[in-house]
Amino acid sequence: MSKIKISMSQINTIVGSLDSNTKKIIDKITKAKKEKSNVICFPELSITGYPPEDLVLSDLFIKNNILALNSIKKHTKNIIVIVGFIDKDINGIYNSAAILNNGKIIEIYRKTRLPNYGVFDEKRYFHSGSKVVVIQKNDIKIGISICEDIWDDYEICKLQSNYGCNLLININGSPYDINKKQTRIKHLSSVSKNCNAHLIYLNLVGGQDELIFDGSSLVFNNSGNVIYSLPSFEEKDGVIDLDLNFNEPNKAQFNNPKKYNLSVKEIDFQYMYTKERNKVRDITKINEIEDVYKALILGTRDYLIKNKFNKCLVSLSGGIDSALVTAIAAKAIGPKNIVTVNLPSRYSSDHSITDSEKLCKNLGINLINLPIEDAHRSMEDSLNFIFKNTKKNVAEENLQARIRGNIIMTISNKFSLLVLSTGNKSEIATGYATLYGDMAGGFSVLKDVPKTMVYKLANYINKVSDNYTIPLNIINKPPSAELKPDQVDQDKLPEYEILDKIIELYVEKKQNIKEIMSNKILRKKISNDETLDIIQMIDRNEYKRRQSAPGVKITPLAFGKDRRYPISSELKYTYTKFIHYDK
Amino acid sequence: MSKIKISMSQINTIVGSLDSNTKKIIDKITKAKKEKSNVICFPELSITGYPPEDLVLSDLFIKNNILALNSIKKHTKNIIVIVGFIDKDINGIYNSAAILNNGKIIEIYRKTRLPNYGVFDEKRYFHSGSKVVVIQKNDIKIGISICEDIWDDYEICKLQSNYGCNLLININGSPYDINKKQTRIKHLSSVSKNCNAHLIYLNLVGGQDELIFDGSSLVFNNSGNVIYSLPSFEEKDGVIDLDLNFNEPNKAQFNNPKKYNLSVKEIDFQYMYTKERNKVRDITKINEIEDVYKALILGTRDYLIKNKFNKCLVSLSGGIDSALVTAIAAKAIGPKNIVTVNLPSRYSSDHSITDSEKLCKNLGINLINLPIEDAHRSMEDSLNFIFKNTKKNVAEENLQARIRGNIIMTISNKFSLLVLSTGNKSEIATGYATLYGDMAGGFSVLKDVPKTMVYKLANYINKVSDNYTIPLNIINKPPSAELKPDQVDQDKLPEYEILDKIIELYVEKKQNIKEIMSNKILRKKISNDETLDIIQMIDRNEYKRRQSAPGVKITPLAFGKDRRYPISSELKYTYTKFIHYDK
Repeated sequence: MSKIKISMSQINTIVGSLDSNTKKIIDKITKAKKEKSNVICFPELSITGYPPEDLVLSDLFIKNNILALNSIKKHTKNIIVIVGFIDKDINGIYNSAAILNNGKIIEIYRKTRLPNYGVFDEKRYFHSGSKVVVIQKNDIKIGISICEDIWDDYEICKLQSNYGCNLLININGSPYDINKKQTRIKHLSSVSKNCNAHLIYLNLVGGQDELIFDGSSLVFNNSGNVIYSLPSFEEKDGVIDLDLNFNEPNKAQFNNPKKYNLSVKEIDFQYMYTKERNKVRDITKINEIEDVYKALILGTRDYLIKNKFNKCLVSLSGGIDSALVTAIAAKAIGPKNIVTVNLPSRYSSDHSITDSEKLCKNLGINLINLPIEDAHRSMEDSLNFIFKNTKKNVAEENLQARIRGNIIMTISNKFSLLVLSTGNKSEIATGYATLYGDMAGGFSVLKDVPKTMVYKLANYINKVSDNYTIPLNIINKPPSAELKPDQVDQDKLPEYEILDKIIELYVEKKQNIKEIMSNKILRKKISNDETLDIIQMIDRNEYKRRQSAPGVKITPLAFGKDRRYPISSELKYTYTKFIHYDK
Repeated sequence: MSKIKISMSQINTIVGSLDSNTKKIIDKITKAKKEKSNVICFPELSITGYPPEDLVLSDLFIKNNILALNSIKKHTKNIIVIVGFIDKDINGIYNSAAILNNGKIIEIYRKTRLPNYGVFDEKRYFHSGSKVVVIQKNDIKIGISICEDIWDDYEICKLQSNYGCNLLININGSPYDINKKQTRIKHLSSVSKNCNAHLIYLNLVGGQDELIFDGSSLVFNNSGNVIYSLPSFEEKDGVIDLDLNFNEPNKAQFNNPKKYNLSVKEIDFQYMYTKERNKVRDITKINEIEDVYKALILGTRDYLIKNKFNKCLVSLSGGIDSALVTAIAAKAIGPKNIVTVNLPSRYSSDHSITDSEKLCKNLGINLINLPIEDAHRSMEDSLNFIFKNTKKNVAEENLQARIRGNIIMTISNKFSLLVLSTGNKSEIATGYATLYGDMAGGFSVLKDVPKTMVYKLANYINKVSDNYTIPLNIINKPPSAELKPDQVDQDKLPEYEILDKIIELYVEKKQNIKEIMSNKILRKKISNDETLDIIQMIDRNEYKRRQSAPGVKITPLAFGKDRRYPISSELKYTYTKFIHYDK
């Protein structure tokens, strides 16, 4: 009999909170024991939370994480626990998985491939392991690996397959972006098929500063088909009964060029049939907008909770961005925990107020109205001494935005409210936002959401809500900052369809100007000079982004630690050709 | 004869500006030819500027940097040029040194040790080289290496020594901090002695966002003595004539565990005696405060120039921080390019205005006076609607700071002035600063300067200036934010001597609370509870620092990319013990 029952614990951890993470892990073990599971697995670095960043440079933190592991060890009677922690030896520290059973550590696997690109800095902290780990009971041979190990050429998994592993368990802290699910399913399916093994892909769930971990844990059979999955953006346990095929060891099947050592440890357990739980969700149908919506809700909620805020504050402009942020926040922590303010200036349209009122009524939120005209006039008077006889420029526009920024921050300081800033990716890319004005805030919900996707999200929310949550007028009116008379965004920016395409190509796909200008969609809609203008705006505004609040990464490349550009720099040689310098 | 004449070109490059960097390199080559130099060397990555960060992820940028190298190649008739650039092959890109002569690339050395700690992210970008490079003419054997290669166990240099190298050339992009000079001299002296070789240590100079490269290039003889040096914080060329000892090759002298390959290339040149130029500066006497002062001046000047600002703006509070920033800025770009404003509120003391006036008179700067009382009153009136019957808290204090922030940003936007913010490291560590208020600005000059060092710098400036540049009253009065009546910093913070010690131990030395509490200096001066309070303030204020402007790193560990802590996190296990969790 090659049957085994496995609990998959897709938990939401808190970075650095060894105590609460340990408590949660022990609770889940207790539950899994009741469910007669033979094995329970937890995500990557579940004891420390992921990514722990520079916390791991503290010796005491590492020591404490090992104390936490010891504390978990005591709860492993009659169950095999696979849990992520940080191991150490004389050379340094390792991103590791402990395999615990009956009060003992039976083996430790150390991650061999350390991601050091995009948002990842693992080579800053960790050393690589050099041991392939297998645990076995008779014909059941389980290979353990961590996240990046299963990507690219998945050497570790192949060597486990050489040994005859019929089950691969890969524990993850894999951040979400809109392309991730498809990529994972495609790649993992081929791994399980090529290795002729069942595969459990267990992922972390939850928001951590810029990152959102989507869960979406998966189980594949040895034919590469998904046979079980856990939901996305939700903390959830699952129990799965597997009946594993027998694999003949075949040492020559895959190469071992790096000469990894193999460690095989015997385990013991009794399989007990309980009830059929395996449930296949249809995970092939991916709704991108629904996923982004859920990602933003979870990201906002977790930022609030993990930073110990109960309530948040949004400044409503009557535009679609602040309306969307309010709708997301209402979903994240409930409308009663949201304070909204409307801060009209002399340039605010009447509909900006009525639309915001309607939105708040739909969501069940109170709206506070604080006109800024007096403050605006008084600030102008103060500045008049040095501004008289100067030409109006962006200074006068920013002044209003910063008065609003000041008011919301003062309210935030008074009542301990987290300010959610409302800028979207298109604005943050081009610098079409006021530093310390509308950019002020603790969390920037739409930071990585392009304006075109803002519209899609608003429409999606209206579609799934009973009535139109977001008033149609907010969606249909031309976007405007309303910082001077009759201003609309398109005075300074191209249509958002065009702008977002350029941002995608230049920022996310790192294309050069020749490639961007030859893009079929753009070619007929925008001139080369205008395209160049946009790219230079993106470059020039790095200094603003550097001082912006964190926000949820949802695209393959977000501003923040995903994109590390110098401020003091000439960037043009990333998009134009070097003009041969010769005197 | 083993004589050789070498030009050391300690240049200030601009990140990403392939054109201006290439022009500067060619100019220096032309000059070196006139001076009959046999070899000229340039700093690490001098073609691209250092650190180029994510610019190198653009294929076109890499291609352009190779075009730039080709352009330089044409200027290498009768001179050997060692210049930093990015090499590439099918596997990826390499931080490299090209050795050029007579229009050809005679060899390329690829850096083997890639720093990926502190402010460095080189493993994010580069692959490691595996070749030891030597160029030789008869008895002159020169080993080339790049920066990190010469640190730790300096394997590369040892293998060059095995071959009999009598000259080591190490090109650098080594950022300054207050401990660096001593560390370098001590280590490099032992390298040259142990390898029995002369050693040229050539460093970059200039400011780049958070980093300042100090130059301070050095030449050691084979006994480990400094025989030549270039100045610190200054772009400068040097020519040195060396008479090298003969080294017998000794293959067994040092191990080659990583099995690096050796490449030896023949070079040719004619040594010509010109005039004795070698000058030894007394580099053993290091004046820490003078160095920090020069670092801040260069950092401020380069941030302005490299971001194309001509002028800057400082808001003067009457306190020592803004006074020091103004004095530094005056030195960096001249007093006529500085605009200062005084923005008194109802809580500002009379001396805050008179002291600022005196400072500006001493420096030859005009001071603009803009009282904020009307704006303050009017903002209070607007907020009264929701603030009435609430208790005064930090909100009312921050309100004023943000009115000032708004005014200086508006003036900045109107006249294209870079705002220099004036917070020091002690404030930024503890969050004793207002986000979007006094933290507003493009460059934060004192970001890494602890308050105790602010005083030392002010006193140093007064000592070296003809009369007291910084009025004594500014130095002697108790520090205060003047945001409420009779407020002083020490209402909320311990004495700065104590605070700065805690910051040094917790932030820079990563000590845990037990270690900090047992520190001899602190033990008698602050209670354990108060120490804990300070540490928690440091932790809690990560969110503010994340939105702060960049500033010059001058300590061994600065806030910014040197210290990557999560915002959403419980950090206590870096300083307190894990309480064994068991239900």
